[in-house]
Amino acid sequence: MKNIEMNWELGHHTGKEQTPEQWVKANVPGNAQLDWARANDYPDFHFGDNYKQWVWMEDCYWTYQTVLDLPNDVEGKKVFFQAKGIDYECEIYLNDQLLTHHTGMFSEVKVVLNPYMTEAKNQLKVIVFPVPKSHHNSYDRSQADHTAKPAVSYGWDWHPRLIPSGIWDEARCIVIGPQAVKSLLVDYELDLQQRMAQVNMEVSYWGGNFWDGSYLLEVLDEGKCVKEIRFNGNTSSFELADLKLWWCVGQGDPFQYDFVLTDLETKQQISRKVAFRKVALVMNEGAYERTNTFPKSRSCPPVQMELNGQKIFLKGTNWVNPEIFPGTITDARYHELIDLALEANMNILRVWGGGIVNKDAFHQYCDDKGMLVWQEFPLACNNHPDDKQYLKVLKSEATAIVKRLKQFASTVLWCGGNELFNSWSGMTDQSHALRLLNSVCFEHDSNTPFLPTAPVMGMGHGHYAFFDEDTQQDVFQWMFSADCTAYSEFGMPSPAFENTIKKIIPAEEQFPPSPTEAWKAHHAYDAWTEKTWLNAHIIEQFFGKSEDLSTLVARGQQLQRIGYQCIFEAARQKQPYCSMALNWCFNEPWPTAANNSIIDYDNQIKPAFYGIKDALRPVLASAQFQRFSYDAGEWMEMDLWMLNDGAQQFDGLNMTIEVCFGEESQEQYWNGIAVKSFENTVGPRLRVKIPQHHQGLFNIKLKVENHSALDSYYELMVKPMEKWKDAIAVLNI
Amino acid sequence: MKNIEMNWELGHHTGKEQTPEQWVKANVPGNAQLDWARANDYPDFHFGDNYKQWVWMEDCYWTYQTVLDLPNDVEGKKVFFQAKGIDYECEIYLNDQLLTHHTGMFSEVKVVLNPYMTEAKNQLKVIVFPVPKSHHNSYDRSQADHTAKPAVSYGWDWHPRLIPSGIWDEARCIVIGPQAVKSLLVDYELDLQQRMAQVNMEVSYWGGNFWDGSYLLEVLDEGKCVKEIRFNGNTSSFELADLKLWWCVGQGDPFQYDFVLTDLETKQQISRKVAFRKVALVMNEGAYERTNTFPKSRSCPPVQMELNGQKIFLKGTNWVNPEIFPGTITDARYHELIDLALEANMNILRVWGGGIVNKDAFHQYCDDKGMLVWQEFPLACNNHPDDKQYLKVLKSEATAIVKRLKQFASTVLWCGGNELFNSWSGMTDQSHALRLLNSVCFEHDSNTPFLPTAPVMGMGHGHYAFFDEDTQQDVFQWMFSADCTAYSEFGMPSPAFENTIKKIIPAEEQFPPSPTEAWKAHHAYDAWTEKTWLNAHIIEQFFGKSEDLSTLVARGQQLQRIGYQCIFEAARQKQPYCSMALNWCFNEPWPTAANNSIIDYDNQIKPAFYGIKDALRPVLASAQFQRFSYDAGEWMEMDLWMLNDGAQQFDGLNMTIEVCFGEESQEQYWNGIAVKSFENTVGPRLRVKIPQHHQGLFNIKLKVENHSALDSYYELMVKPMEKWKDAIAVLNI
Repeated sequence: MKNIEMNWELGHHTGKEQTPEQWVKANVPGNAQLDWARANDYPDFHFGDNYKQWVWMEDCYWTYQTVLDLPNDVEGKKVFFQAKGIDYECEIYLNDQLLTHHTGMFSEVKVVLNPYMTEAKNQLKVIVFPVPKSHHNSYDRSQADHTAKPAVSYGWDWHPRLIPSGIWDEARCIVIGPQAVKSLLVDYELDLQQRMAQVNMEVSYWGGNFWDGSYLLEVLDEGKCVKEIRFNGNTSSFELADLKLWWCVGQGDPFQYDFVLTDLETKQQISRKVAFRKVALVMNEGAYERTNTFPKSRSCPPVQMELNGQKIFLKGTNWVNPEIFPGTITDARYHELIDLALEANMNILRVWGGGIVNKDAFHQYCDDKGMLVWQEFPLACNNHPDDKQYLKVLKSEATAIVKRLKQFASTVLWCGGNELFNSWSGMTDQSHALRLLNSVCFEHDSNTPFLPTAPVMGMGHGHYAFFDEDTQQDVFQWMFSADCTAYSEFGMPSPAFENTIKKIIPAEEQFPPSPTEAWKAHHAYDAWTEKTWLNAHIIEQFFGKSEDLSTLVARGQQLQRIGYQCIFEAARQKQPYCSMALNWCFNEPWPTAANNSIIDYDNQIKPAFYGIKDALRPVLASAQFQRFSYDAGEWMEMDLWMLNDGAQQFDGLNMTIEVCFGEESQEQYWNGIAVKSFENTVGPRLRVKIPQHHQGLFNIKLKVENHSALDSYYELMVKPMEKWKDAIAVLNI
Repeated sequence: MKNIEMNWELGHHTGKEQTPEQWVKANVPGNAQLDWARANDYPDFHFGDNYKQWVWMEDCYWTYQTVLDLPNDVEGKKVFFQAKGIDYECEIYLNDQLLTHHTGMFSEVKVVLNPYMTEAKNQLKVIVFPVPKSHHNSYDRSQADHTAKPAVSYGWDWHPRLIPSGIWDEARCIVIGPQAVKSLLVDYELDLQQRMAQVNMEVSYWGGNFWDGSYLLEVLDEGKCVKEIRFNGNTSSFELADLKLWWCVGQGDPFQYDFVLTDLETKQQISRKVAFRKVALVMNEGAYERTNTFPKSRSCPPVQMELNGQKIFLKGTNWVNPEIFPGTITDARYHELIDLALEANMNILRVWGGGIVNKDAFHQYCDDKGMLVWQEFPLACNNHPDDKQYLKVLKSEATAIVKRLKQFASTVLWCGGNELFNSWSGMTDQSHALRLLNSVCFEHDSNTPFLPTAPVMGMGHGHYAFFDEDTQQDVFQWMFSADCTAYSEFGMPSPAFENTIKKIIPAEEQFPPSPTEAWKAHHAYDAWTEKTWLNAHIIEQFFGKSEDLSTLVARGQQLQRIGYQCIFEAARQKQPYCSMALNWCFNEPWPTAANNSIIDYDNQIKPAFYGIKDALRPVLASAQFQRFSYDAGEWMEMDLWMLNDGAQQFDGLNMTIEVCFGEESQEQYWNGIAVKSFENTVGPRLRVKIPQHHQGLFNIKLKVENHSALDSYYELMVKPMEKWKDAIAVLNI
């Protein structure tokens, strides 16, 4: 195999037949808009509302071109151009001869150049079409409803309108024999009782068709060969006994075998990792009992994850593109973010359907680290139609996605996309796109569960606020009565760090915040509602007017921490009927001024991250409160728990509950606690008298004797002082 | 084409390799058990508990055999044995040579006999295997969980344990050229706006493979040719404009074209009917608005039928096998029952998944008459497993079912099966069988909606009683507050007619009824609960002790009429959020002693039939009551409606409401009523004072001036007299 160097340049034009007036250096992988802006000294799109200067680039054709220096001796071999992802629709030419027309950014493009190769230099050209838009009636995500391109780029409440184009994943030009092995696909049926797998292998070739080679497969367990198979042809099956299983983090080791395939004729060798796990969605405990009166409906669908026969509480987060321009995402970017999620005691990432399907590096790292992946298809908050052309592209994209990602053990859940069965999307169980995705997943990966969308019945999305002005309830109040099988999205906004705000908002607008173009561009205002995501009025409702930016940021981030801790713990307290809690969202694709994320674009860690990390410890002391704020003099009630989602056990634990109102503190006790594996222990309901004289925050410490790692800490509030009322009145206008 | 006469005989044996000791004449189509019993003078299985004498026949092999008198001149032709349905697993032999092994009663068996034909007589043998049972731990429907055989035969609360076997649908032996046309398959995409269809035809041949013939297709509209197409090959497409659509009863004509295909070489001609309709399940009005608080779940799935762009209220019933032994069902049996459903103003039959998939005659008659069909696959109240062998059979059966029934316009809804998502079944959205069925339907008939099961979320099944002893509510009470998108099952039991009871219950046991073997065998006791379906104690709770059988029957059948009328009208009053009401059940497969059916086995019409017929008139005056029984002296409330599920309109209607307590009557009025097409009109809530002295039934008449066809009539009750209380106490023990 020989790699041919490619030096790309690109330019834009308005008609497909035209050629660019200016050529600039192109990065591959990358995105056309970034290269163009860099070459033409565009200002940083992160600052102010600069991104608006980029918007015209949506409607261009972009031509990439490179001249290939091809070897003379390709006899018997073929020259392939292979691109793992071209965004979104393109035509590929060699020496002005059309090789292929391709639609869809998640399916590989692979073309043979030989038929049009010349002795002289060979010019390879990729013409990328303007971004797809189904209409021009509005300037929003609905324009993406006829495409399998991620809708987020068309503008979202935390993502500016910036729609990437170009060769966004690896591309190469190679000279290779068509019978050379391209990949080894592995499928298996797993018998948990027998700890045995029936493994089916399929060898695929560069030339696409099947050759009947002679192969040796070696299965290695940390370098030691545990199985050797010799076979002819392109498929083979064998049994692997005494199986080591792959486990997610917190439940065991993410064990992977190495499969090494040797072509016995050519001695070509390829290797890959293969991990074995059995995964299912089973009925949530108690779900069958909740529809007991006539007329009887069905029970809520199962969303309890079972891994290798063990029911797992899914604790994690919603993953969004870590970059606006996905061509720039590096392996390191994936690794640092996944490492942070692991640090937060999370075991699953929901790869939300508004964004991209990630590159292999993301999935391999999740396999390596034991991070589960809920993978959505690129459908979100749109009514994707029963349109034959759309469905054709969706089918080829989905098939490519499933065949690629099913090779990773971490892919434990397929999902049609985000919030498709809600009024703002308007899709239903009858939508052809979702029936198609069910079929594709069932055909290619029936052993992994499929959800048509989230939420399904019984699952909850939201709320995305610390305090709901419609119901006049705070997060503690609605979580006390919430009764979902899973919380697959819930948000808690906070302002960005001060240093970020100073980088993206013009100096004269920074404080006090106001709905200027820059603040709005960064989602502090007019994002979801007029006041989101900054929600300054809610911060002031509890803390009074902030005198400077750093105070506002600190208070807003504190509310975020308190709110997220409350929801994660409340969800875990509702286990086993509840089986999942994922906050919206983990990361962000650019620096926002306010957002629900817990890691900012620069990987700065918000206080909420640590609150969540604590709430997601395998075992912890936990309390449930019915409200966040109390009147002086009233009785506050708190329910105690020991939460446990793992195999650990404890006996005879003693807990001291310390409630501190400034200097003054009260103590109560819960002693002799037994904690069984994979089971919460329910404690008593305590009553605490709020002192008459206290105002503002107070705190509760749950201390576990000799096990301080299980301690927990909460902050609640005695209602704001009279003197703040005027300030609040002003802010609420 | 030449038909070879077949004279079948059959016998049973215990091992597959054995041969029968006794041969008896066999009817084809028919069922082995019936033939055996007839030849051996078994007593009528309808009487007493005689059916138990048949049960051993489940576990036999049954061999059918016939000697074929084959012509000498088959050169260039083939001899086919074709059976439309063999129940359930079989092997077919010619002259003791195995031709095929087949599993599944709904897929055609077609074999070529030529390879093993001899000059002498040819012996054709069909060995039918013992009925499939997945286990022997219990003696019930769960034994059918690994098969695609209808579970009802394994015993149900209205069906004895009698499991048929044999050649149950048409079978023939014919001599024909392999390139002769076997059928013409028609698919289309319909453009409602343009009143145009894009029609795709496919010619299929006896030989299975494709020949490239030359054909003429003529499209006839009542004999007049409206389109002529000449084509070569086996597929062709054309547009049909100025389309006449197929409508269901009550909404328009069930128009069908005749398609006549002529093979221009052989002059062979085949013709079939083709009807055009567009069907969808769309969101029920208001369903999106019902999940408005955080955390937000999804909305209930759509179950509102839309036919040719018009939303249709589905009013109908649950259809069950009209015979225990499906081989005996004649075209006439189908026709007489469907005619009765039409007479009851019904527009849909739910072909319940516990029973068989019907023969073509059923579907053709539904097409002819405009009766919609909700077709379930043979899964009901079982946990059909993710088992590869089961799924393989299910796939071939389902594919055959879909390809056959999609050719009928009346097939408007596919459904995985009955109550699969409830605790007593234990299947879920993740069950492979249901994901498979969704895929099969999507692949072969994506233009017809698919439900995984009924009930889906929002739909209701039940109750199956006039009075619920758990909640102490009568049917008026729970229907007043019920809030389902669809009522796809609800029952109301009644005793059978006196003449039937006298035919099936030994004389000495007939009155008073008691839980003897004969009454239990016919589902009067121990069917669902100890006291169903006779529910004598509920009849007595309202009417007091019945002095003879005819009084008990009359009272029980009166409660059935009142209850069914209440539910059907209540469902229609809840339109448009509610879009469907289907009672459980229409007919019955044998004479029961008590059942929820409204037509008995002998086609005797229960009073409930007429109550339903009235409740399902397109337009009617209607009242909603909050309870069935009232205290003397209290105020009764009633809400008035004009119901309308069709295109008719009225203006300025005047209604008189007459409430009669024996001789004494009160009148109130609702005047100047406008009735718009496809829309109910809500009237006032009236209040009526129950007289102090009245006891027992009283009635309400809604009389529409000059439109007596819209009048309605109700019966309610003033609570039972003191003197009955003792009797009730005794019965309730």
